[in-house]
Amino acid sequence: MRNNYWQLLFSPDSVALVGASNTAGSWGFGIMQHLLAPAQRNVYPVNPTVSEVCGKAAYDSVLDIPNPVDLAIIAVPASQVAGVLGECTQKGVKAAVIISGGFAETGEAGRKLEAELVKIAWQNGTRFIGPNSMGHADTASKLSTLAWTGKIAPGPVALISQSGNYGHRIIHNGMSSGIGFSKFISTGNEADLHFEDYLEYLAQDENTRIITGYIEGLREGRRFFQLARETTPGKPIVVIKAGRTEESARAIKSHTGALAGSEAAYAAAFKQAGVIRVDDDDELCDVVLALLNQPLPRSNRVGILTIGGGLGVVAAEACEREGLKIAPLATSTMEKLDTCLPPRWSHGNPVDMVGISMAENPAAFSSLWALIEDENIDAILLQAPVGLDADRLSRMFDNEEIKSFQEMERRNLGLLRQQVEEHEKPVLLVKPALEFATDMEILSSFRSEGIPVYPSPRRAARVLHHLTRYKRYLETAEK
Amino acid sequence: MRNNYWQLLFSPDSVALVGASNTAGSWGFGIMQHLLAPAQRNVYPVNPTVSEVCGKAAYDSVLDIPNPVDLAIIAVPASQVAGVLGECTQKGVKAAVIISGGFAETGEAGRKLEAELVKIAWQNGTRFIGPNSMGHADTASKLSTLAWTGKIAPGPVALISQSGNYGHRIIHNGMSSGIGFSKFISTGNEADLHFEDYLEYLAQDENTRIITGYIEGLREGRRFFQLARETTPGKPIVVIKAGRTEESARAIKSHTGALAGSEAAYAAAFKQAGVIRVDDDDELCDVVLALLNQPLPRSNRVGILTIGGGLGVVAAEACEREGLKIAPLATSTMEKLDTCLPPRWSHGNPVDMVGISMAENPAAFSSLWALIEDENIDAILLQAPVGLDADRLSRMFDNEEIKSFQEMERRNLGLLRQQVEEHEKPVLLVKPALEFATDMEILSSFRSEGIPVYPSPRRAARVLHHLTRYKRYLETAEK
Repeated sequence: MRNNYWQLLFSPDSVALVGASNTAGSWGFGIMQHLLAPAQRNVYPVNPTVSEVCGKAAYDSVLDIPNPVDLAIIAVPASQVAGVLGECTQKGVKAAVIISGGFAETGEAGRKLEAELVKIAWQNGTRFIGPNSMGHADTASKLSTLAWTGKIAPGPVALISQSGNYGHRIIHNGMSSGIGFSKFISTGNEADLHFEDYLEYLAQDENTRIITGYIEGLREGRRFFQLARETTPGKPIVVIKAGRTEESARAIKSHTGALAGSEAAYAAAFKQAGVIRVDDDDELCDVVLALLNQPLPRSNRVGILTIGGGLGVVAAEACEREGLKIAPLATSTMEKLDTCLPPRWSHGNPVDMVGISMAENPAAFSSLWALIEDENIDAILLQAPVGLDADRLSRMFDNEEIKSFQEMERRNLGLLRQQVEEHEKPVLLVKPALEFATDMEILSSFRSEGIPVYPSPRRAARVLHHLTRYKRYLETAEK
Repeated sequence: MRNNYWQLLFSPDSVALVGASNTAGSWGFGIMQHLLAPAQRNVYPVNPTVSEVCGKAAYDSVLDIPNPVDLAIIAVPASQVAGVLGECTQKGVKAAVIISGGFAETGEAGRKLEAELVKIAWQNGTRFIGPNSMGHADTASKLSTLAWTGKIAPGPVALISQSGNYGHRIIHNGMSSGIGFSKFISTGNEADLHFEDYLEYLAQDENTRIITGYIEGLREGRRFFQLARETTPGKPIVVIKAGRTEESARAIKSHTGALAGSEAAYAAAFKQAGVIRVDDDDELCDVVLALLNQPLPRSNRVGILTIGGGLGVVAAEACEREGLKIAPLATSTMEKLDTCLPPRWSHGNPVDMVGISMAENPAAFSSLWALIEDENIDAILLQAPVGLDADRLSRMFDNEEIKSFQEMERRNLGLLRQQVEEHEKPVLLVKPALEFATDMEILSSFRSEGIPVYPSPRRAARVLHHLTRYKRYLETAEK
């Protein structure tokens, strides 16, 4: 048996589920399904009222399990948890996840019960997640102690969440944007392990490139900021910190018993530690998508490439409201654009190509190269239709022509990836009004070249705001 | 031939397209496709270089058309437009749409050319849309002079847009949320007909219940606000007014030659006229969806129903940031919720049902009725999973049970519609993290009962902000 509790928590060889159940719809059933899915570790259901759970022999107590147990998952009524935890420590279990609720979040009696758990664990050198946790997951070791969330796509993003449901929301939102996760922890009441412990661990975790979090209140604020300051130069930290308003702070207290704390203190500290703070799960996923795929912009000067004047106007406004600059174009860029765009182009930034479509005309890609090469520009917001009207194409071109057109597009998309890397300038795409199935295909070909696609200029501009501030923080931190 | 130019513009019996073309991908081809689609009016292509266009005999000039022409669409190079318009007036055409660009938006020479068009039209009593318009559409008369936008779903929302492309974006965004349109006008340079003219017409239009707009700069500000003040008590007006920042104002000038005008003056005037002003096409569609389907809330006190503490926290924060109040629950509501929810429920607003799912448990609907009946609450934000895990359901219930469950849900959804109307309290649903195909089905069953579904609490809260302010305006205006 191994004794590093992180390894036992995230990559156990054997797991006992106390409160395992055959009742579909129950936690003890849902968790069992997730535990059994990978079939690569020993899973011991514990339930004194049945002889087997989901085809596995059930034990009356963890003490009856004949083999060592790395990790215990406890999903029994609150009143039984202390007893079960005591048996676990007796069995030599050094890591646990306490799913059961009904502790500090419910008031004074629950707080006492919770203190009892901590005492039992600490006396025996056992560490635990929860109570009142929705479980945790590690996609590399294929462990999931969750009951509901389903299969999580693997990837380099870790999530520490002080709300199980909100974590669930972030994970599903992320997966639908193509984001994969390394580890997920629903921290619950944090009676033993704190948000800060998970942060410290993930800062060292090789499978994690970005750490994200949903925070209601931090128990060790000073330690959090010390850790964050050490981590952000190498790994971005992106968090939602709720509780900025009176009623949301009150709601936090009734949710996990945490104190939302001083908003001003949090805001200042996040800034000083280079933590990227976002408002909600959409914004979190938006920023993560860019951090995963795009370089940080050197500064805040944005070039906007669009096919319509109005689209450019709204994008410019969105950028300026996020503290970005609409850069004047270099003379050489003006000259380049004059050679590839119709005479009516806007002759300024936003670059309105007056109707030329990215998909139809190499001129659009030439314009994009001109903007990427412009020394006045640090980042590009692309608001051009990437869609091809398949029907229209088939009326304009024969099959051979369509094929050669598609090849050209593939070449240009490959080149785009190169240009982004070479010039270290992020390119973000704003999803155009989609009409045709082929539009979606072309969108996904941009995505597969690492160009994030956002639903509105507002959201793309917000991402650039965060990237710019983070870059500035890193430069200052280096000095 | 009729002589009300509005009727000629929106419901012509006969249309001539000058610049009609067989070249797929050209404006003259795209417009021809849209004109011919409904096959309920005479369409005369005009093009001296070909003998027929899309199977219709082509004329060298409108003067050669043997029958009367209600509406002329002009899509020829700028230099030829004055000549064509002259021929149209000679023919007795009283309404025109000038698609051609290259006028005031391009500088001094273009401005002169544009003034020439106005002179020709006015001397002959002809009115026109444009120039530099992307066309217009009327779904009732099945007229579309657009080249690109495709089929527009019919419905009660009119759109006047000072950007063709942005209008296109709004329409596609709207249609994807289930919004249908009565009329769409891409106003172009507004040499003759102004935004204000369209507004005045649509205020009287029986097919239009809501007027939306994208505005860069108004030519007759005073008239706009007079009209708006008269209209908003009966028909909501929802607009995007761009140009709040320096560079976006500059971009407007290069787009349509308009002046963005004083932001402070616009903001004050919109407020005084009860105009709902939104930031972008997402927000526009969000508000329209609620206005179409939900009553206005009496005031700003929101009840939040959720299945997770964290979800409630973030929703409460989003509401408060939009100036809404998280109402304390009435004692009677607390008592009702105590009878239908597990003892661990949050005992306050946000109402955290601690895991109960709307789809699984009648208790969730009972909780919803309790909130709707609460005198302290004016509107409800529902952040509960409407999704059913089909797989899980099939493990928990047999087919008969599933069927009866589904029937119960249908009954509850019907009841929800009744409750909303009876109590005049809007109910907005925030889309949960979706995992299963059945989730989408259930979402659409909420939608079909007129419950709008929003992607985030932020967007739902923003909608309630607008509805509340509009309601307050209407009450003040009545006095």
